[in-house]
Amino acid sequence: MIGIDWGTTSLRAYRLDEAGAVLEHRESAQGILSVPGGGFAAVLDAEIRPWLDAGERLVLLCGMIGSRQGWQEAPYLPCPAGPAEIAAAMVPLPFPGAARCLLVPGLLTRGPEGVPDVMRGEETKLVGLLAELGDGAAATLCLPGTHSKWARLDGGRITGFATRMTGEVRAVLLGHSILGRLSAPAQGPADEAFRRGLRRSRERGGLLHHLFGTRALGLVGELAPEGTDEYLSGLLIGHEVRAAVEDGAPGTVHLAGSATLCRLYALAFAEYGIRHRQHDPDIAARGLALLGRTIG
Amino acid sequence: MIGIDWGTTSLRAYRLDEAGAVLEHRESAQGILSVPGGGFAAVLDAEIRPWLDAGERLVLLCGMIGSRQGWQEAPYLPCPAGPAEIAAAMVPLPFPGAARCLLVPGLLTRGPEGVPDVMRGEETKLVGLLAELGDGAAATLCLPGTHSKWARLDGGRITGFATRMTGEVRAVLLGHSILGRLSAPAQGPADEAFRRGLRRSRERGGLLHHLFGTRALGLVGELAPEGTDEYLSGLLIGHEVRAAVEDGAPGTVHLAGSATLCRLYALAFAEYGIRHRQHDPDIAARGLALLGRTIG
Repeated sequence: MIGIDWGTTSLRAYRLDEAGAVLEHRESAQGILSVPGGGFAAVLDAEIRPWLDAGERLVLLCGMIGSRQGWQEAPYLPCPAGPAEIAAAMVPLPFPGAARCLLVPGLLTRGPEGVPDVMRGEETKLVGLLAELGDGAAATLCLPGTHSKWARLDGGRITGFATRMTGEVRAVLLGHSILGRLSAPAQGPADEAFRRGLRRSRERGGLLHHLFGTRALGLVGELAPEGTDEYLSGLLIGHEVRAAVEDGAPGTVHLAGSATLCRLYALAFAEYGIRHRQHDPDIAARGLALLGRTIG
Repeated sequence: MIGIDWGTTSLRAYRLDEAGAVLEHRESAQGILSVPGGGFAAVLDAEIRPWLDAGERLVLLCGMIGSRQGWQEAPYLPCPAGPAEIAAAMVPLPFPGAARCLLVPGLLTRGPEGVPDVMRGEETKLVGLLAELGDGAAATLCLPGTHSKWARLDGGRITGFATRMTGEVRAVLLGHSILGRLSAPAQGPADEAFRRGLRRSRERGGLLHHLFGTRALGLVGELAPEGTDEYLSGLLIGHEVRAAVEDGAPGTVHLAGSATLCRLYALAFAEYGIRHRQHDPDIAARGLALLGRTIG
């Protein structure tokens, strides 16, 4: 089968065997924002034509391609949801190149107070982690990023999740606030500044106060411009982890993401005394394969 | 005397009597960012020439004009500091137009963990509130804005303060994040959306999660685009007040700021069960007058 993780700024294509092993892999910068309306089928065809010609019949697509801004909207599926529910809710796409072409739906959950939360694309990674964990036991998962996802698994299903806007808040503060104007590029890793930010996140005062402290430390010469960016990252990731801990003791956190982010989150988990286990960043392929097997 | 509140984007000039009453008032958009290097004396002279010609001899300036980016740097004075310490630390400026021309210093404090915090300009407003409260009793003050200041007064001095980056975080999120793309201009006040944001700030999950909830509510059609801005304001002001409460029961909060912000903060204080008393927004003039009287 063929699995496609098609996001806002990139397209990742996998040719997969039954077990989810990646036979071939392609990546392009043709995210959904760069494809003109009505052009999705042509882009996809160009990307996977050789695999279709080689006899692949099933194409599954996940990510923002299933959003209102994508090819077609695949409505959010409410939690709890496992591979069976997600596979059953997949939306057929008119793609003449393949016998079956289906969009994976995003997920919707509601917190204890009824406030909604959504994901699109990450549900496939969670399915991949479900496959990897295998035993159906309760587990806490963390997918760090622009919009970090903290999910609970139980009985082989995703029972709920919470999104934290850590990466995007960091980017807009560095790009557009007074904090960015203090920052200078770091010369190599600045773990000590990152750890200072982490430690600060555990103290009183709240995030809005801690953010301004980044500026005050810079003004009085107690934080170098080269450390500002990492200190801010430590503050924000620290507050993310702090809130996850306050929401309920997470036990071992299963972590999957880029090597860079996983290294920083490992430091944060150590600061907060949380055990974690790191997983393959390519779990989306594994999730797509499991969904493909589920529909047979 | 003449008092000048010279910030980044505006210049406010007051002609004051001994008691701090405003005899005349001028305002211009010539903030320090719009004045070319070396041009401050000429701008000031043009602004207050008639008052100097009428015999005024003393000019006090507060605000970002005393920062590194201003006319001359007036170093931060450590807390605790009252009118006497602030007046004694004022920095003389070479301005031929007046017998005496002095820069009011900003203030520096350190939180319980030693992290610094700074203000520049707001110290003069706090001195104005000190004059207004008069009795030297302990009090909590809130000056809402881009960088909201929460200060403690005791024994007629400013004993410490905490800055929260509420207004700037709101502006960068609306201007540059995914939350701004959801927002549409409100048709008149949207207090109900603001109150929803306030209530949300009291719940679990942390600010980074609550922020993403703004988007999720919009996506599922439970928050109108016209309410996004006000909901976000409620969230952020709510988190500001929540953190201030967690830092210690504030008793009655003395509030001074624009009418628009004071109305919103009054709603937030009501939500959190805090008493408050609103003061004249023009307390900077009163503070400048008290500092002028202090040096005689």
